Amino acid sequence: VPPLSHWVNGQLGGAIDATDRGFAYGDTLFETFRCHLGKVHLWDYHAERLRRGLETLDIRCSLGRVEQQLGQGLEWLREQEIEQAAGRLAVSRGPAGRGYRSAGGEPTLVLSLGEIHPWRRPHAPLQVAICRTRLGCQPALAGIKHGNRLEQVLAARELDVLGMDEGLQLNTRGELVCAVSGNILLVSNGQLMTPPIVDCGVAGTVRRLVLDELAPALGLPAIEKVLLPADLDTADELMVSNAVAGIRSVSRCGSACFTSTKWGDNLRENFYSWSESAA
Amino acid sequence: VPPLSHWVNGQLGGAIDATDRGFAYGDTLFETFRCHLGKVHLWDYHAERLRRGLETLDIRCSLGRVEQQLGQGLEWLREQEIEQAAGRLAVSRGPAGRGYRSAGGEPTLVLSLGEIHPWRRPHAPLQVAICRTRLGCQPALAGIKHGNRLEQVLAARELDVLGMDEGLQLNTRGELVCAVSGNILLVSNGQLMTPPIVDCGVAGTVRRLVLDELAPALGLPAIEKVLLPADLDTADELMVSNAVAGIRSVSRCGSACFTSTKWGDNLRENFYSWSESAA
Repeated sequence: VPPLSHWVNGQLGGAIDATDRGFAYGDTLFETFRCHLGKVHLWDYHAERLRRGLETLDIRCSLGRVEQQLGQGLEWLREQEIEQAAGRLAVSRGPAGRGYRSAGGEPTLVLSLGEIHPWRRPHAPLQVAICRTRLGCQPALAGIKHGNRLEQVLAARELDVLGMDEGLQLNTRGELVCAVSGNILLVSNGQLMTPPIVDCGVAGTVRRLVLDELAPALGLPAIEKVLLPADLDTADELMVSNAVAGIRSVSRCGSACFTSTKWGDNLRENFYSWSESAA
Repeated sequence: VPPLSHWVNGQLGGAIDATDRGFAYGDTLFETFRCHLGKVHLWDYHAERLRRGLETLDIRCSLGRVEQQLGQGLEWLREQEIEQAAGRLAVSRGPAGRGYRSAGGEPTLVLSLGEIHPWRRPHAPLQVAICRTRLGCQPALAGIKHGNRLEQVLAARELDVLGMDEGLQLNTRGELVCAVSGNILLVSNGQLMTPPIVDCGVAGTVRRLVLDELAPALGLPAIEKVLLPADLDTADELMVSNAVAGIRSVSRCGSACFTSTKWGDNLRENFYSWSESAA
């Protein structure tokens, strides 16, 4: 699906300089999100993660500039009378000379808007596999949504070959970390568990919403816990969360089968209600 | 230093599509090299590493297409009567829709040519530091020159702060792996040692030339060996190699001081002679 529209440094349909460090080194940060009735869903969480990423990589781009670019995109959606869209905003260190040390110029800002399924679209539970491609442990880059994503690219190609909807990725120690395009939420014995994002993986916005808001509101204890593949066999329910698709149930992962529980049903229901009321 | 000239898919001065997966995910491979009198120095080694990278990432770009693009660049250098240049050739998976799984279109090929110092330029020995940013262990991507280089970007920023010429990077186990922009060559007790490139790091072309050709021709035993920072204290000579700058001596790394040995002098001399005769 090609994007509906995109802007490079505010220019509709613009292109990227051939010397951009985003292209050269993946020297970028990005956020993917849902635009809904003139707002970016969970923008506060996205902005906070982006701010942390900009600090980590020392890319000097103000959130004000980012939000101005977002405003331009949201205005365009209004003009086109498009109620919902998937958004992707990337910030790179910008064009630069040769070599890792070459100072970047002005950061490059790219916003893309694409088509999206409406909220609450019923979906068949996902079939997932554990990917062979593991995530290297790199605490300096864990949590932020940076542009070095070859580990996800390789894992996604495994899913294409297997014909799977999603994949779970382990770190090199063999612990569950993330889905290829989202976070892992496991319900077991009336408790919700998600792997800590310490050595690798992305600290997702919906994951944070679940931990901080939705699970407590349901009275569902929710914790970060190191999880192993064997924990899938004894779990009641497995879900995958991301900012664009929301919270989706998994029916199967290898020999482990899952059904939806009342906790999962309530969590998803509250997620959609919360999201609609926030919009 | 801005590039002398660049081509995107054969187009002089072209730009990169905003949806290119190189910009989105660092989904690229690249080679940096020295162009010298109408040839690419060590092209066979570069081509072999690039071929391995294209296979690893499953990017469908023929070496024929790559070499045609190189030919265009070399022809341009001839027309401009430029004898030497630094080259950078990148191949990305190309423009694509949203998400890791979106199939790439035609790969994007970018060639940049930049100014370079002449061969044999005398240089002051490098002052290097051990960087705090370590390299995560990811065997699936080790050795190839892929475009996920944030670990090098972070390390390079440390060097800027410290005012160092180069940096050495350890893996997360604390073993020496690579320089930020090159490979590590250590001479100790009449033996040349370089860290194995198994879990991370780039298998450099000059490193390979040293191991396969130059050291054997000198009667200098050369091996891949796990090296720790403590090994620097007892070493006679430390050098850093890369395709653009060649083989450079290091004068100091932390408390360890180095002088040039006859092995190092001969290695560098043979490298320049070999390079000039190959050109």
